Amino acid sequence: MKWCRFQHDGQATYGLIEGDTVVAVSGSPFDVWTRSPQTYPLHSVKLLVPVIPPTFYAAGVNYREHVTAIAKKRGVEPQFPPFADVGYRANNALVAQDEAIVIPQDATDLVQYEGELVVVIGKKCHKVSEDQVLDYVLGYTIGNDVSERTWQRNDRTLWRGKNTDTFKPMGPWIITGLEPDDLHVTIRLNNRVVSEYNVKDALFSVRHFLSRMSQYLTLYPGDVLWMGTDGDTENMKDGDVVEVEINDIGVLRNPVVRER
Amino acid sequence: MKWCRFQHDGQATYGLIEGDTVVAVSGSPFDVWTRSPQTYPLHSVKLLVPVIPPTFYAAGVNYREHVTAIAKKRGVEPQFPPFADVGYRANNALVAQDEAIVIPQDATDLVQYEGELVVVIGKKCHKVSEDQVLDYVLGYTIGNDVSERTWQRNDRTLWRGKNTDTFKPMGPWIITGLEPDDLHVTIRLNNRVVSEYNVKDALFSVRHFLSRMSQYLTLYPGDVLWMGTDGDTENMKDGDVVEVEINDIGVLRNPVVRER
Repeated sequence: MKWCRFQHDGQATYGLIEGDTVVAVSGSPFDVWTRSPQTYPLHSVKLLVPVIPPTFYAAGVNYREHVTAIAKKRGVEPQFPPFADVGYRANNALVAQDEAIVIPQDATDLVQYEGELVVVIGKKCHKVSEDQVLDYVLGYTIGNDVSERTWQRNDRTLWRGKNTDTFKPMGPWIITGLEPDDLHVTIRLNNRVVSEYNVKDALFSVRHFLSRMSQYLTLYPGDVLWMGTDGDTENMKDGDVVEVEINDIGVLRNPVVRER
Repeated sequence: MKWCRFQHDGQATYGLIEGDTVVAVSGSPFDVWTRSPQTYPLHSVKLLVPVIPPTFYAAGVNYREHVTAIAKKRGVEPQFPPFADVGYRANNALVAQDEAIVIPQDATDLVQYEGELVVVIGKKCHKVSEDQVLDYVLGYTIGNDVSERTWQRNDRTLWRGKNTDTFKPMGPWIITGLEPDDLHVTIRLNNRVVSEYNVKDALFSVRHFLSRMSQYLTLYPGDVLWMGTDGDTENMKDGDVVEVEINDIGVLRNPVVRER
């Protein structure tokens, strides 16, 4: 199934995408829901961020080449995390498909994309084994973990570096029934492929992260886990368009604008 | 006004506390609301966490004595943060008045309280000056930033050290119309005062944090900012009761239980 959230009569409504049609749904995929008789052509609806998470988790550094590339730029030895210690991002920064990534006036030029798989939790999950934990996942979507590298490096926390308004594009929709280890991420800047990698090359898998997290905390319906990115990253500038594609999910596309 | 959130017919409902009575409200203090004709004796209702924040901010290290005490225990020089860089906590960890703080089986004995003022945002707030920013605050409540110190020190992030389930007691209610710099925090462990301090001794004030944050991000109704704690902290163990009192707000009280 292909779940979306869209603007309808000024209200956020969940919908099922079937071909080029959106079937409006009463309720949500995280609770009880029923198909309504209302349908809309997909191209006519304004897609919203597919879920506003109660808690917004991020794996952070979770791929070997990404860690190595960043270490090289800083002239230090790469340090791989010894355990799957999850971090956080913030809802204020979320934007949807086609919405602009806005670079603040006082940001440096080092504003970069990070294309990532996003896991969306479907059911309350506590102390669940790696074998069973994917049963608690509703589906998968795409995220772009936009980062201002000087703030990321120098601030005490990631608040500006990662969570400035518009720095967390997520969407366009949630696909159910996928095997995360079969997925492949391709990142394009102005139609040029700048990075691609296999999800299964992660230091810690979706199964491992979720199961380990669930030993100490309860995952709730709608929580999201961003899985981290691989490879090197480049600067984005005013007028650019950045796309993150994942096979069997789709393309998350966002224009870039610099605040004047 | 004294806003609470309580369990009613299996639903979370906002209410106004007037003396010993709770007046149920339709809507929420973050949007339109009306008093309902239904009232309940305060002692008969189950108080819930007074708000589930869209984003859960925490000042982290924000008091001089607290930084100095922690540095001394680690045998290092105290380092004061140069800027008000805000951090994050997670909703999974929230518990309400009288609910237990549960220490996991594999935690060390270094599980400690941190009593804090909590600011609750009432209106959307973006690029607002220090002079004006308190106009966007709904009110104030109390938080206990429970921390497992070995995990806090050794994990790559604060996920277990700060955000294990039940590690974020918040409540009991939200009080409007207070001046944060007039508030005084007292922390008691089993009725013994273990720490007290004045909110105005913070390295960075409520006004400064909120205004600075709002230059890069939008604060939304219901967002909370925990202001950090001062002084040294002690271990809590199975059977303890921890209380955080703030004048003009009330007492946040939680029992402590170790998982067997």
